[in-house]
Amino acid sequence: MAVYTHLGAEDLARLIARYDVGELVSAKGIAEGISNSNWLIETTRGRFILTMYERRIDIGELPFFLGLLDHLASRGCAVPATIHDRDGAASRKVDDKAVALIEFLPGVSPTQPSPEQARAVGAALAQIHLAARDYPQTRRNDLTPKDSATTLQSHGEDELALIDPALPQVRERAADLLERWPEGLPESIIHSDLFPDNVLMLGEEVTGLIDFYFAARDMMAYDLAVTHAAWCFDKTGARFDPAIGQALVAGYEAVRPLDPVEREALPVLAEGACLRFVASRAEDWLDTPADAQVLRKDPMDFVRRWDFYAEEGARAFA
Amino acid sequence: MAVYTHLGAEDLARLIARYDVGELVSAKGIAEGISNSNWLIETTRGRFILTMYERRIDIGELPFFLGLLDHLASRGCAVPATIHDRDGAASRKVDDKAVALIEFLPGVSPTQPSPEQARAVGAALAQIHLAARDYPQTRRNDLTPKDSATTLQSHGEDELALIDPALPQVRERAADLLERWPEGLPESIIHSDLFPDNVLMLGEEVTGLIDFYFAARDMMAYDLAVTHAAWCFDKTGARFDPAIGQALVAGYEAVRPLDPVEREALPVLAEGACLRFVASRAEDWLDTPADAQVLRKDPMDFVRRWDFYAEEGARAFA
Repeated sequence: MAVYTHLGAEDLARLIARYDVGELVSAKGIAEGISNSNWLIETTRGRFILTMYERRIDIGELPFFLGLLDHLASRGCAVPATIHDRDGAASRKVDDKAVALIEFLPGVSPTQPSPEQARAVGAALAQIHLAARDYPQTRRNDLTPKDSATTLQSHGEDELALIDPALPQVRERAADLLERWPEGLPESIIHSDLFPDNVLMLGEEVTGLIDFYFAARDMMAYDLAVTHAAWCFDKTGARFDPAIGQALVAGYEAVRPLDPVEREALPVLAEGACLRFVASRAEDWLDTPADAQVLRKDPMDFVRRWDFYAEEGARAFA
Repeated sequence: MAVYTHLGAEDLARLIARYDVGELVSAKGIAEGISNSNWLIETTRGRFILTMYERRIDIGELPFFLGLLDHLASRGCAVPATIHDRDGAASRKVDDKAVALIEFLPGVSPTQPSPEQARAVGAALAQIHLAARDYPQTRRNDLTPKDSATTLQSHGEDELALIDPALPQVRERAADLLERWPEGLPESIIHSDLFPDNVLMLGEEVTGLIDFYFAARDMMAYDLAVTHAAWCFDKTGARFDPAIGQALVAGYEAVRPLDPVEREALPVLAEGACLRFVASRAEDWLDTPADAQVLRKDPMDFVRRWDFYAEEGARAFA
């Protein structure tokens, strides 16, 4: 959440001139996105988000991400389309960094979502799953439960215990989960990270799903389980809101009814979602110096969710 | 340059509803301003900047700053007007922090200004000096050369030498400068910090002077000297661009001709401007841990400018 690179007004004006979007009127660095620099750009013809890819994102994968936005937007999904430059390119280089210009979408991210909002998000998620089925590009999900288990194994128990004394036990639970992990459920390109801050809404309407930089080919029901884990709890994972969960799944099924095997798999898929965020947060925590002025997210927030799904099983989705 | 406080969409919508500005459509945390949190807010009726005052600003001084914007805007100066809430208040409290809503102005900040742009900035500066003369509130400048000299004295020579071996010698130069500091030049409310990033421009037109949080009553020619030091050099202060300086002063004088005593004082006033930024940068440097992810600005950039003004004297303004 920062602007890592300074782009001066003249740099920005030159860059914007490479697109058929009018002349630069305003540019504000915005505190958004994961490890990218972002600017809210206004031109004489509209507003746009300019992203500079700083790290974490393999530039070779940009055509997948940017093409996906175009594919979904062209099918009426609420995602920002990629603005192509005058030569038709979806991304450009500025110095040695890749940049892309995408549509600005109105809306704000709910922090205390209502069931009606969760229902709309479920429906929007199902829409992208259906629309992405014929997207011609693909990308392997590199944050599967197996990847996450490997991440946790790469850190010693002592190291994990530095974060929380209860954390090391997730390594065994991860191994157990891998044994139970389902295979063969229907796949599409999934968002994989649809937290409320990646959703823009106006009232109860979804105006944009954003930040597709974890999108990959995987089981659609897993994406619903990720979204369930991301939306139905308070921040710490201590309190579950069943009304949000029911509305989310109902909204999803209003657009794409789940197969019985998918519905049955939701609890274990939700455990896998928790494992993923426990592992990535533990990794980030151990990579971030304690005195850095960056908010470290507590992996235990998702251990609590994991406990809930493990204990409640199918009742979590009743 | 950050967003220090998280304000959720619901918090923001509630806050915006206290103003007669339409309904919230979008809110982006922007990386702007000194130690405040800022959001670019879009409503159904327009765009606004929401500022939350985090530190460095004495809340008791907000009426001075926000009233000044209204005063200047009402006199046609290119500054954002303060939006008052439904009860007429210029600022409100959110939790225990003060917030204010101000006009959004188009424009971008030049990083390689042209002489034509410098001329327009000089004229805009003179306009605020003239318009502020009858502003009924006042505020003491707490960053005079005397204050800056005291700041430097508060740090030992050893401590200053940690930043740069050549830095400790500025303490003696500061004492010498105080002896030569002019008095009795014409005063108004001055901006005091008109670096290019506090100016919004579209082409050669000034669309906004922003960030008045150092504004205070002081000599108008001193403000012109501050602006000269801020605009006429490369970042490190190693290279002076006389065309920018000439255009800046000419633009100023096209609106408000300098008295002969003011013109004569410009070199020593510019030395004072350099002292101020040397002192504030040294203070910030020593207050910022070396490993903090914050860019520390080198005080030596303004020691070099100081050298230039001391050596060139009146030639710097010829």
